[in-house]
Amino acid sequence: MPVPPFTALADSLPETVPFVGPEALQRRSGVPLRARIGANESGFGPSPKVQAAIAAAVADVWAYPDPEGYELRAALAEHVGIEPDEVVLGEGIDGLMQLAVRLFIAPGDPFVTSLGAYPTLNYHVAGFGGVFHYVPYSGVHEDLGALARKAHETGARMVYLANPDNPMGSFWPAEDVLRFINALPETCLLLLDEAYGETAPSGVVTEVDTDRPNVLWLRTFSKAYGLAGIRVGYAMGNRRLVRAFERVRNHFGVNRLAQAAGLAALADQDYLRQAVNAIADARKRIGDIAEANGLRPLVSGTNFVAVDCGRDAAFASAVLAGLARQGVFIRKPMTPGLDQHIRISAGPKRQLDILAEALPIALQDAQSA
Amino acid sequence: MPVPPFTALADSLPETVPFVGPEALQRRSGVPLRARIGANESGFGPSPKVQAAIAAAVADVWAYPDPEGYELRAALAEHVGIEPDEVVLGEGIDGLMQLAVRLFIAPGDPFVTSLGAYPTLNYHVAGFGGVFHYVPYSGVHEDLGALARKAHETGARMVYLANPDNPMGSFWPAEDVLRFINALPETCLLLLDEAYGETAPSGVVTEVDTDRPNVLWLRTFSKAYGLAGIRVGYAMGNRRLVRAFERVRNHFGVNRLAQAAGLAALADQDYLRQAVNAIADARKRIGDIAEANGLRPLVSGTNFVAVDCGRDAAFASAVLAGLARQGVFIRKPMTPGLDQHIRISAGPKRQLDILAEALPIALQDAQSA
Repeated sequence: MPVPPFTALADSLPETVPFVGPEALQRRSGVPLRARIGANESGFGPSPKVQAAIAAAVADVWAYPDPEGYELRAALAEHVGIEPDEVVLGEGIDGLMQLAVRLFIAPGDPFVTSLGAYPTLNYHVAGFGGVFHYVPYSGVHEDLGALARKAHETGARMVYLANPDNPMGSFWPAEDVLRFINALPETCLLLLDEAYGETAPSGVVTEVDTDRPNVLWLRTFSKAYGLAGIRVGYAMGNRRLVRAFERVRNHFGVNRLAQAAGLAALADQDYLRQAVNAIADARKRIGDIAEANGLRPLVSGTNFVAVDCGRDAAFASAVLAGLARQGVFIRKPMTPGLDQHIRISAGPKRQLDILAEALPIALQDAQSA
Repeated sequence: MPVPPFTALADSLPETVPFVGPEALQRRSGVPLRARIGANESGFGPSPKVQAAIAAAVADVWAYPDPEGYELRAALAEHVGIEPDEVVLGEGIDGLMQLAVRLFIAPGDPFVTSLGAYPTLNYHVAGFGGVFHYVPYSGVHEDLGALARKAHETGARMVYLANPDNPMGSFWPAEDVLRFINALPETCLLLLDEAYGETAPSGVVTEVDTDRPNVLWLRTFSKAYGLAGIRVGYAMGNRRLVRAFERVRNHFGVNRLAQAAGLAALADQDYLRQAVNAIADARKRIGDIAEANGLRPLVSGTNFVAVDCGRDAAFASAVLAGLARQGVFIRKPMTPGLDQHIRISAGPKRQLDILAEALPIALQDAQSA
């Protein structure tokens, strides 16, 4: 007996996982995970106050979360200097991306992104039948001028920019991003992904301007706040834009512990500063390890460092595989022009000690392959 | 400056919230919540072992959850007697419903449900442009024969059945559900919602039969397991059906603490039995309170009791409002034929003591209105 017919669109989609998790890699390889520095998580973890807030919220875990996420939205709005109805919560930025795409991309609608940018967004755009128009990176930077031109040329409904960028760690000053926003068609929504905003140098993160109805700002507790496991991200923008998520979102999707954790994380900005400093130190250490092995670390505004392995993509892949064999989980860009790099997350000392030990072995194996 | 154009479908959707949460009701009314017995949560909470498992998992909350949810899926599969790739996790049943609708309902596709059944599913079906065909309840039961006939008549792509039923608490024996399944067109997917399965009498929950590719079984940790706040539900069925969720789901959506909690909850079946007994006792107590006030409680296979207020919908609404004024949060069906009922969740003694105190006052107010 056949499966009932999928929609034509669903029928056309592949079964894909934008990122295979380290647990799955370990299950397949059988190699125990020694250093988890591949998913741009923060091994420094959340504030102790956040851990206490989660523990306190467990007593109420029998109760559905507030579907309005009111307290966390209000706190975020105050933190950013906007109104609560200019913020919407989601199950990580990934969850919000799915909904934003659903609101703006119908089958055949043009979408512009950089070739090699965040694959999960591409997964969602493909999932709603969008048509891709790619702009190559300019060196290791997303090419703002070319992205804006492509948006005009194609009549794009949506364009994506991550600033700072993943997977390269590069960034543009806020004033350049503002110029980019001004250059976009009014009919094109910019998804401005500032997941890594907290770890960027000052002057990089843009001011949220809710008078611009064609920009959706995306931020998260998954990176510098150290809460990737609890799934809470948020989108901000003009209230007509933000309110539209009420048409499509899973209202009870952001769990009760996540809301409590987000609230406590936001309240502890002292800890955030400590974490950001620890991440900066770890970036420096990754750079030192890379250079000690004759590799070139890129300047990074994120919680990871892209490292140029100095040869071709096959070589970088071999380095990655050599690290994996030693239980060091990292990832790498796969797009030509970027794929000579590997991407290493800023983790605690113990994790980077393992990297320092494993990298020369991986390089030797790759060189002799 | 206008908001960029939504898709035609998104543009047509209203901004709705299928359920306004008790926190929001309290924010609007200013009345402090004294008894939270309206959302069919389990005030008995999860097992102490689950609370310990969540506390232990907090140490790893910096790390993304396993996107495959492998351990929990494997445990569920073993518990049910199926294979891990015949299970998919989601952010509650609500999250899985959204994805199931996305896979099977395109604009214009017919959908069959009972008039007065779960509004959140209707929200998702409307959200993907489905066309509704309603079947009235037969008394307080969903009408299996009429649902099957309507599915044939309309060429439905999807039909919904909750067994036991929400909001009425009624249920059909598994053999009747099996007959219903056999009567459906092969081209119609049945969403079989067994959220309340654990609290049903024996012989009500169906056996998961993964050889039937047109049935998706939906179950959850939100009800008897006492974990509504952590958001984890699961869908089971034929692997071709279940694997299709990989085309559309938010792979990192089910948070790390939820996966740990689900695993611990499933492992503590002794606690589940205790909780189910406590829920049964609370149902009995709700019935006694109702009868002591001259109202008629319905037989229930769920963690709530629908109570017939004996007069019209306006009267039942007045009773609900009278309870709300006293800080007692309950809900009620709004559909003609069912709307003379109020729906009270099985909570701990303290909560039902407040109900016992508040109900006579609410009735008196309603009678004198």
